[in-house]
Amino acid sequence: MKCSILLFDGFTALDVVGGYEVLANVPGMTLQFVAAAPGPVAADSGALGLMASSAYNDLQACDILYVPGGPGVAAAMDDRALLSCIARMAASAPWTVGICNGVLLLGTAGLLAGRRVTTNYFAREQARAFGAEVVTERHVREGRLLTGAGVSSSIDTALYLAGQLGGETLARAIQLGIEYYPAPPFGTGTPDAQPQLLKDAVAQVEQQAAQRLAARTIPF
Amino acid sequence: MKCSILLFDGFTALDVVGGYEVLANVPGMTLQFVAAAPGPVAADSGALGLMASSAYNDLQACDILYVPGGPGVAAAMDDRALLSCIARMAASAPWTVGICNGVLLLGTAGLLAGRRVTTNYFAREQARAFGAEVVTERHVREGRLLTGAGVSSSIDTALYLAGQLGGETLARAIQLGIEYYPAPPFGTGTPDAQPQLLKDAVAQVEQQAAQRLAARTIPF
Repeated sequence: MKCSILLFDGFTALDVVGGYEVLANVPGMTLQFVAAAPGPVAADSGALGLMASSAYNDLQACDILYVPGGPGVAAAMDDRALLSCIARMAASAPWTVGICNGVLLLGTAGLLAGRRVTTNYFAREQARAFGAEVVTERHVREGRLLTGAGVSSSIDTALYLAGQLGGETLARAIQLGIEYYPAPPFGTGTPDAQPQLLKDAVAQVEQQAAQRLAARTIPF
Repeated sequence: MKCSILLFDGFTALDVVGGYEVLANVPGMTLQFVAAAPGPVAADSGALGLMASSAYNDLQACDILYVPGGPGVAAAMDDRALLSCIARMAASAPWTVGICNGVLLLGTAGLLAGRRVTTNYFAREQARAFGAEVVTERHVREGRLLTGAGVSSSIDTALYLAGQLGGETLARAIQLGIEYYPAPPFGTGTPDAQPQLLKDAVAQVEQQAAQRLAARTIPF
């Protein structure tokens, strides 16, 4: 079984690695990282670079197409090679997974109209503009489409997928292997339940994220 | 403020990226990835490669020394350049962070005797052999030493650290930014609370991990 994870400049690393870490532990799974060209791709911070081994245009069939998000999504929505890769692969892949605002890339590739999805708290309006029914769950499956909410939801989303692929015992074994028994030190809840002042502050940071991308230094 | 994240062949990606994603969002934080030499370093699966921009031997002072774990720890415990880097940096760094069985590297570098730590469920005995008092919490701080349990505990551990560095409001803002309101689809609990059969099965996989490293294909 092959999982192709798409990378683009300014992706958010935990969107990728939360899901990767779970899926890499599914027996028989082969993972590949795909970008405009093979080589390092810079995450949003600029400090972290992930290696791609394949190019969008060379991608053949896969079983799981995995599309992360990040501040780089704004520019990636104009990347024709990436969007055409998504549309082509999603047409036949048994699973298409969108995480965080990576769900917007699925929308730009024409995959969201009339579909029930979740996405990053701060990307819900944009997802609705593609004609999607946006819900606030941590992960949502509709047929071959599986979407996850923000960033760290990639872990929960991929555990659900592991359960679908190999059963609940496998998913629980992977959960134990990655010790996913979370204990957030500053409380739990949901994005919606956070104080409005906090949501406004984070919204402002998110809005400036694309500008920060342009200003960052990449050391590799 | 500078955070130096050490990489070595066969690290576990979520050990690194869970903490990285939180710390990268602390204002004023500079992160660098450090390995034997600059260039790509392969995670345990072989499919994922993270770029290092600095070499162990070139590392000067840092504020946070961050040591992840993974199946590669077994071999890394014989890596004199890595161990000497850990010992040198930890002598002056305000924070030394060990995640998962990366805590054993701190032990090999002489930092665990008499210290209260946590570590991966499957690494507790080895940590005790270094004279540490091993507890089962998700993260433990003792002075300048901060340790986290397995893999995904890197997120909780780094959120605690973000709170220490910038206060609870900052930590809560980062938690919202990465939407860390976990909802594991197959239940919660602790490693200790899992069925013995499941623990035995995962223990067997963990024991074979070092052999799997030698057999893997690295596509970059």
